[in-house]
Amino acid sequence: MPSQTTTRMPSYSFMDDYSEGAHPALLKALVSSNATQETGYGNDTYCELARQRIRRHLGRDNVGIFFVPSGTSANAISIAACLRPHEAVIAASSGHIVTRETGAVEASGHKIINVAPHQGKLTPMVIERALKDNWHFPHMAKPRLVYISNATEIGTIYTRDELAAIKQVCEQNELILFLDGARIGTALASKANDMTLSDVLELTDIFWIGGTKNGALLGEAVVVKEPRLASEFEFYVKQHGSLLAKGRVIGAQFAELFAEDLYFELARQANVAAETLSRGIAAAGFTVSAATETNQVFAALPLGLIKVLQDHFTFYVWERYGDDEAVIRLLTTWATDSEQVDRFVEMVHQWK
Amino acid sequence: MPSQTTTRMPSYSFMDDYSEGAHPALLKALVSSNATQETGYGNDTYCELARQRIRRHLGRDNVGIFFVPSGTSANAISIAACLRPHEAVIAASSGHIVTRETGAVEASGHKIINVAPHQGKLTPMVIERALKDNWHFPHMAKPRLVYISNATEIGTIYTRDELAAIKQVCEQNELILFLDGARIGTALASKANDMTLSDVLELTDIFWIGGTKNGALLGEAVVVKEPRLASEFEFYVKQHGSLLAKGRVIGAQFAELFAEDLYFELARQANVAAETLSRGIAAAGFTVSAATETNQVFAALPLGLIKVLQDHFTFYVWERYGDDEAVIRLLTTWATDSEQVDRFVEMVHQWK
Amino acid sequence: MPSQTTTRMPSYSFMDDYSEGAHPALLKALVSSNATQETGYGNDTYCELARQRIRRHLGRDNVGIFFVPSGTSANAISIAACLRPHEAVIAASSGHIVTRETGAVEASGHKIINVAPHQGKLTPMVIERALKDNWHFPHMAKPRLVYISNATEIGTIYTRDELAAIKQVCEQNELILFLDGARIGTALASKANDMTLSDVLELTDIFWIGGTKNGALLGEAVVVKEPRLASEFEFYVKQHGSLLAKGRVIGAQFAELFAEDLYFELARQANVAAETLSRGIAAAGFTVSAATETNQVFAALPLGLIKVLQDHFTFYVWERYGDDEAVIRLLTTWATDSEQVDRFVEMVHQWK
Amino acid sequence: MPSQTTTRMPSYSFMDDYSEGAHPALLKALVSSNATQETGYGNDTYCELARQRIRRHLGRDNVGIFFVPSGTSANAISIAACLRPHEAVIAASSGHIVTRETGAVEASGHKIINVAPHQGKLTPMVIERALKDNWHFPHMAKPRLVYISNATEIGTIYTRDELAAIKQVCEQNELILFLDGARIGTALASKANDMTLSDVLELTDIFWIGGTKNGALLGEAVVVKEPRLASEFEFYVKQHGSLLAKGRVIGAQFAELFAEDLYFELARQANVAAETLSRGIAAAGFTVSAATETNQVFAALPLGLIKVLQDHFTFYVWERYGDDEAVIRLLTTWATDSEQVDRFVEMVHQWK
Repeated sequence: MPSQTTTRMPSYSFMDDYSEGAHPALLKALVSSNATQETGYGNDTYCELARQRIRRHLGRDNVGIFFVPSGTSANAISIAACLRPHEAVIAASSGHIVTRETGAVEASGHKIINVAPHQGKLTPMVIERALKDNWHFPHMAKPRLVYISNATEIGTIYTRDELAAIKQVCEQNELILFLDGARIGTALASKANDMTLSDVLELTDIFWIGGTKNGALLGEAVVVKEPRLASEFEFYVKQHGSLLAKGRVIGAQFAELFAEDLYFELARQANVAAETLSRGIAAAGFTVSAATETNQVFAALPLGLIKVLQDHFTFYVWERYGDDEAVIRLLTTWATDSEQVDRFVEMVHQWK
Repeated sequence: MPSQTTTRMPSYSFMDDYSEGAHPALLKALVSSNATQETGYGNDTYCELARQRIRRHLGRDNVGIFFVPSGTSANAISIAACLRPHEAVIAASSGHIVTRETGAVEASGHKIINVAPHQGKLTPMVIERALKDNWHFPHMAKPRLVYISNATEIGTIYTRDELAAIKQVCEQNELILFLDGARIGTALASKANDMTLSDVLELTDIFWIGGTKNGALLGEAVVVKEPRLASEFEFYVKQHGSLLAKGRVIGAQFAELFAEDLYFELARQANVAAETLSRGIAAAGFTVSAATETNQVFAALPLGLIKVLQDHFTFYVWERYGDDEAVIRLLTTWATDSEQVDRFVEMVHQWK
Repeated sequence: MPSQTTTRMPSYSFMDDYSEGAHPALLKALVSSNATQETGYGNDTYCELARQRIRRHLGRDNVGIFFVPSGTSANAISIAACLRPHEAVIAASSGHIVTRETGAVEASGHKIINVAPHQGKLTPMVIERALKDNWHFPHMAKPRLVYISNATEIGTIYTRDELAAIKQVCEQNELILFLDGARIGTALASKANDMTLSDVLELTDIFWIGGTKNGALLGEAVVVKEPRLASEFEFYVKQHGSLLAKGRVIGAQFAELFAEDLYFELARQANVAAETLSRGIAAAGFTVSAATETNQVFAALPLGLIKVLQDHFTFYVWERYGDDEAVIRLLTTWATDSEQVDRFVEMVHQWK
Repeated sequence: MPSQTTTRMPSYSFMDDYSEGAHPALLKALVSSNATQETGYGNDTYCELARQRIRRHLGRDNVGIFFVPSGTSANAISIAACLRPHEAVIAASSGHIVTRETGAVEASGHKIINVAPHQGKLTPMVIERALKDNWHFPHMAKPRLVYISNATEIGTIYTRDELAAIKQVCEQNELILFLDGARIGTALASKANDMTLSDVLELTDIFWIGGTKNGALLGEAVVVKEPRLASEFEFYVKQHGSLLAKGRVIGAQFAELFAEDLYFELARQANVAAETLSRGIAAAGFTVSAATETNQVFAALPLGLIKVLQDHFTFYVWERYGDDEAVIRLLTTWATDSEQVDRFVEMVHQWK
C-alpha cells in the first residue's frame, strides 16, 4: 500500500537521477521568467523560444514540439495519440511502459505485446517475430507501434546502425517507431554513441527529450514529425491533464538547456561520474555486470561490502547474484558530487 | 486547429488568472529547496511539510493529500478514482469538466449528466431532478458523483448553507460530493463567504485546493477524506502521468502558501482588485452583470468603449448584449497592478 | 437496483417492439441453416448470402457489412471505430446513445455534445450551433461525428431533403454522419417517407439496419461505406465481444429478411397497426400528440381511461399532461394482433 | 487484413467446436419459445427458468446469473466489472484473453500480467511469483484478479486440489479468482475430472458456463457469487452492448441444457469422440503430444500423412515438429460424426 511517509535521505544517494533540484542555470532562467505576463497553455515566449532552439538542434523547422510534465505523461500521450483502438504496442518486457507506469498505456485502451530484449534493446528479429506471432486478425490486436528507450532501462544505447535497422523493419511493416528519451541526453553524450539528435528525428516517427532526469525540475519535450499528428497533438496533452497553464515553468528550462549545448554537457558530466564509479569498482576486482555506457552502473559486490556501503550511501540492491553477492545499481547525474564518487570507490577498494 | 504561434501580450492583461509567474515568496521557497537531494515522487521533505501545513488548516490529521500539476489532472484523476465503470457524474452545463477539459472525464469512461446551473451553482432540486431523470437501470448510467466548483466558473460562491444542503441530498442518495477548488482561495476569501477550509472538508467527500490560479507556478492539492480511496489514490495520480519525480516543485510552493495565511491573503488581494474594477465600472453607470463575489468581473459596456479599452488592455469579450453592447470578462490576481486597475476605471469614466 | 425477477406479461403488450420472438420465416431459415458445418465468426454461407442480398438492396457492391447482436453494440462499435481520442459526437439530448445505453459511448472514451432536437430530429442549424459552441481548441473536444436516428426515438422520420441538408453541413465541416437504424424499416416503410435504402447509403457515412425490432430474434447489420474503415471494422466488432462464433444465427435471419422485400413488408405491417391505433384514438376525440409516422403512437388520455386500459394492456405511461391526463406510448410490430388493436380502440371509444 | 470472403467447408471439419448449429433439442426449445410476448432484456420467462435450473445444478440460490452472447463479452465484462482502474489481471501467456480477444481487456483499461503456464494451467507458485515481481506501488499496476480457463486452451483440466490451491493463494493475497468456462462442460465431463459445478462455484469468485461450444447457437452464462457485484452486473452487460432485447434466444437454450443433464451429456459425447481419435492415432504408432483429457487432440504426424488427411478433413496444423512432422489439432463436439472419426483413424492406420 503506498504510504505518504517521508524518507529523509540518510546519506549520499546514488539511487536515481531525479533526487536533485534543477541545475542552477535553469533555476536562474525560471526566476528571470517570473516577472512578466505571459499567454497561457504553452503559447508563451519561453515555450516558443525553447521550441526554436530545439528545432535548431534538430536541424528542422516543421516539427511539432510539445512540453509535458512527466515521462509517464510523455509516453501515455504519445501512444494514445498514435493508435486506433485495435492497435497494439511492441515493447521489451523490461520497458518502462511495461514495468513502471501503472498500466498507463493499457488505461488508454492499448495492449502491449511484450518481447524479450537483448541487453535492454529491441532488434529487427525480435520485432519480426512479434509480427509473426500476432497475425490472427481480427482475433488479435494489430501490432502498430514499436516502443524503444535510448538509453535503455539498463543504461545501454542504440548505435545509429541498430536504430536504422529497426526503422527499416518498421517501415516495411507500417509500424510507427516511438523512442522514449527520458535519458536521451546521456545516450547521445555517451562515448559509445554515434548519433546526433537530428539522426534520432530522422530514424523515428515520434520521440521525446527528457528534462526531468537531465537538469530540469520537471518537463519533457515530445517531438512529433508527422504533420497531421502534430496538428492534433495538443488535444491529447490537454485531455491527459498535462497542458500546464503557466507553460513557462517548462519552457524557460528547456530554452536554457538548448540555448547552446548545456543539455548534452550535463549528460556528459553524469556519464563521467558513472564511468569513474565503474572503473573504480572494476579496478578493485569486482564485476561490473553491464557495459557502463551512460549514467547507470550495475556492479556485483559481496553482501558484506554492500552492507558497509549502505551505511554511507543510498542505492538499489538490484538482485541477488549467487550466494554471497548481489548486483547493485548506481545512478549519477550532472549534480553528482565527485568527492562522494571517490569516497565510494575508496570504500570498495578498502574492502577485503 | 491548435497553432503553436506565440502571442506576445500587447498590453496589460485582465484575460485570466494564470498569466503571471509565481508569487515571489513561492519562487524564493523553490530556490531554497533546490540544493538538497530528496526522495522522489512526492515523498520528499517539502511535500510532507506542505501536507502537514494543509492538514493544520483543515483541522484534521487523517486525510490524504496529493499534489498534481494541473486542474484538469485534479478533476480527471479524482473522478476516475471515485467511480466504477457504470457510474456517472452530475455537473452544471457550465462546469469546467464539461466545457474546458477536452472530454477528459469521458476519456476515462464516464458519462457527465449536464444540468442547468443557477448563477453558476447547483442546487438540491436540480440534483434531485437529475436523479429522477436517470432512473432507468441498467439502461442508464447510474448517477454517483456530484461535481461543483467554488468559486464557480462565473465567479459566484456557495454559502455554507447551500453547500450543506447539497451534501445532505448527496448523502440521502449515496452520491459522492466532489468540489473543484481551482479558485477556492478567492471563494473563501470573498466578503460574501461564511465557510472555512475545514467546513469544505466536512461538507464534501473529495476536493482540491488550486495553486496555479493563486500564487503558484503550477500545482493543485487534492484532499481525499475517505481512507480506502486515499490509500489507493497515488496509483491514479501515477497512472495519469501526474506523479512528478521531483515532487518538491509543487511541495515547496504549497508549504509556503500554507505556512501561515499567505494562500488566503493572495486571494483577498485578487478579490480587492476585482471589487475596485467592479465598483468603478458601476459608478460610471454601466451594468456589472453578475455579482462580483470573487476575482471575476462581468461588465456590459458599449462596443465603442470596448474598442478603446482593447488598445490598452487584454480581456475576453464574453458575449454580445443587445445591438450596441457586449459583456466583457476581467480577471484579477494577487499580482494585478493597482495602477492598471485605476487606469482602466478612469478610461471607463472618460467614455461618453 | 436492477432485479432479476421475471415479470410475466399480464395482458396484451404494446410496451415495445421486442416482446415478440422471430418472424416465422426467419425461424424457419434458422432451423434450415442448423444442419451443416460452417466456418466461424461471420465467414459462413449465411452471413455471406445476407451481405449479398443487402448489397443488392443498397445498389452497391463495395460496402462493408457487419453483423452485431444488439443496437447498443452497433452504436458503440461504430462510434469507437470512427473517432480518435479527442473527437466528440453531436447528438440530440433524446438520442438513444444519450439516454438508454448506460454510457457506452463515453465508456469508449468519447464525449457526446447534447443538442436540442426538433420533433426528435437534428437540423443543420442545430449542428452548426454546436460547432460554434465548441470551437475553443484544444480545451474542447472536437466535434467529429453526428449521430441521428431514423425513425427517431419518438417515431418521426427524416425526409430525403432533411437528410441531404444534414449531410451537406457534415461535409462542409468534416463531420462523419452516422445513422442509427434500429427502426429504419418502419422509417422507410412509412407513408411519409421519400427515401430508399440506397439513398440512406448515399447520404450517410455509416449506418445500421435493425433486425431485433423488425422480425429477427437478434442482430443488426452495420453498413460501412469508407473502405479503410470497413477494412478494420471487424477488429472493433471482435474487441467489443460482438463477433459471434456461429455467425449463421444472425446471417440466416438477415438473408431471409432481404431475400425479397420481407424486411419492409414487416415494417409496413407495424406501421399499419400504429396508424389504426392512432386514427381510432383520434376519432374518439383524444389528442395524438406526435405525428404517427411509424410504429409509435403517443396519445394524451384521461387518467381514468388509462387505468381501465391498464387492466387489459401493457404500455408506457410516458409523462403527465395537465392535471387529469397523461401521454401514453404504444408500440406495434409485424406481430401485433389486429384484434387486440381493435379491442384497444373500442375501449377508448367506450370511455365517457 | 480481415476479409469477408466465405470459405465453404470443403470436407469434414475437426477445426473447432463452433462449426455446428444448435443441438436439436435446443433448436426445438427455441422454436417453442417463439410464440409468446415476453418482457425484454433478460427478464423473460425463459431466462428466469434457465437461472433456476442452473442454480439447482450449483446447489445455491443466491447467485447472480447473467447471459451474454459470446466468450469475449463474458471475459471482458466480468473483468471490467471486478476491477478498479489501477488493478491488473494475472493470466497465462496462452490465455484466451491474452491471445485471441483483440485486446478487449486492455480496451477496458486493464493491464494483463503474463505468466508462463504449466500444461496450459496456472499454479500457486506462478501466481506468487507474479505478485513478487509486481510490488513496486504505485509505479506498478496492482495485481487483483487471476484469470484461468477450465478446460485450458490446450484441453487440459484442473483437479479439485489444484483449483483449491489456487483459490487459497488468491484468498491470502486478496485476489479475485475468475474462471473462463468456455469449455467447462468438457472439463467437468472429463474422465480425469473430480469436480462438480458447485465445486467450481465454491472455489472461484466469478466464472462462466459456455454455451456456444457445447450445444447452443450462442450464449454464455456468467455466474457471480459476490452480492454487491451481482447487483451491479447487469449495468456492465448493457454498457458492453451484450444485453439482448430478446433474452429468450439465450434463455431458452440454457433452460434446455440444464433441464436435466444435457449440458454434460453433450460434453461427454465430445470427449468420447476425442478419445477415440486420440487412441486410434496412438495405436497407429504416432505421438499424441498432450494428454487428451477433453475435446482437443494434439497429434504429431508425418507431413505426408497430413497432406493426405487434408484432402478429406479440415483441421489446424498447429506447429512444425522436427523436419518431417507437424502437430495438428483436432476438435470434437457433441455433433461429431463417429463415422468420420473412424474414417480419420483408418486413414492414419493405412499410412506407411
